[in-house]
Amino acid sequence: MTIKAAIFDVFGTCVDWRRGVAEAVAPAFAAKGIALDPAAFADAWRAEYQPGMEAVRSQGRPYTALDILHRENLDRALTATGLEATFSEAEKDALNRAWEKLPAWPDVPAGLTAIRARVLVAPCSNGSIALMSRLARFAGLEWDAILGAEIARDYKPKPVVYTASAAAFGLAPEELVMVAAHNDDLVAARAQGLRTAFVPRPAEHGPGQTKDLAPSEDWDIVAEDFHAAAAALPGA
Amino acid sequence: MTIKAAIFDVFGTCVDWRRGVAEAVAPAFAAKGIALDPAAFADAWRAEYQPGMEAVRSQGRPYTALDILHRENLDRALTATGLEATFSEAEKDALNRAWEKLPAWPDVPAGLTAIRARVLVAPCSNGSIALMSRLARFAGLEWDAILGAEIARDYKPKPVVYTASAAAFGLAPEELVMVAAHNDDLVAARAQGLRTAFVPRPAEHGPGQTKDLAPSEDWDIVAEDFHAAAAALPGA
Repeated sequence: MTIKAAIFDVFGTCVDWRRGVAEAVAPAFAAKGIALDPAAFADAWRAEYQPGMEAVRSQGRPYTALDILHRENLDRALTATGLEATFSEAEKDALNRAWEKLPAWPDVPAGLTAIRARVLVAPCSNGSIALMSRLARFAGLEWDAILGAEIARDYKPKPVVYTASAAAFGLAPEELVMVAAHNDDLVAARAQGLRTAFVPRPAEHGPGQTKDLAPSEDWDIVAEDFHAAAAALPGA
Repeated sequence: MTIKAAIFDVFGTCVDWRRGVAEAVAPAFAAKGIALDPAAFADAWRAEYQPGMEAVRSQGRPYTALDILHRENLDRALTATGLEATFSEAEKDALNRAWEKLPAWPDVPAGLTAIRARVLVAPCSNGSIALMSRLARFAGLEWDAILGAEIARDYKPKPVVYTASAAAFGLAPEELVMVAAHNDDLVAARAQGLRTAFVPRPAEHGPGQTKDLAPSEDWDIVAEDFHAAAAALPGA
């Protein structure tokens, strides 16, 4: 196994989207006197995530950047929580920037640097280049390139997102490792010939998380955090 | 003028391709007892650069990454210099990596860091993502994303390369500044509404350079190097 690049799921694997979205919306909720728990609102917003992308993946909608889907999903989440009349369009546009301000898990910035000392690194996320480049600055992530959905113009787990990311680095699929906290992401990457690394994030969904607490298959690497993943790379 | 991102020509503006290619091919030439000046060979190779891209820009060839064009151009340059029978295919593939090993002009790494402290930065080069990401490591360039030809799937100075790069950052054209040592690159960028910064590189083509020694238009910024360009950004 010779690995020349590592590509990463970002939402959940590199950053704590639930806490980040909650912290970003909390001041706006407080200003409006909204009693709803901001973390519960983050969950409601994220619940629209897969349905929004599914329109592109399987229902014929042309590729539409995640920033736009997030904005549409925000309207749905506000309606679902009874807040549809609370925010102006400008306020909702500002709330949508929450996804650019998500904190990295504590091990990620230094662990990613350790991985980058050995191989090329890039996000292979459903986030757009605009979103990923701004989030990288906020969270302290240093990438060699921004790969993933936008260069493939489709959404994970569609095969083209993994194969296009490998091709963009000029590598064969087996020369890359996909790093994710989500087993289904790794199932899809492995099906395209990529190597796989599972890093569990048991707090991604807050207390009581039941999914992705353990590897579902014999992934090439299973590591407790990014430092351990760096140490587990071949030749490390 | 509010600038939120700076995008850069790379070959010539950020890196000294002529010296880099010459230094990369010199050991191979010495090993084969080739008397040709490696810098003259770099010129011969670069002379095939625009014709190679023109097939994509205007002659119906589907987008083909610059790595492949460079490899084709290498065969032409070897033939043009009487060296067509000198190198094996594997040796030519290795020579083609010369374009990943080009030194930055002395002001560039620190000057780019100073620019990046103020705005998003990305190459807007005809180089591929694979090439730009490896070259960035060699030359010490830290980018927020790799934009340019590959995301646009066409070559500068075609308008889509500039507009796609702006769109990838989620910005309007007038929120970006195109930084280049080549007046024609800035002409094309300005035509799409981007701001323009000219940084002359009078040694790009070696001694006796006659082109691009001075600005041909009233570019928004004219700076002697990247440090001066950073200082000239609005609000700096």
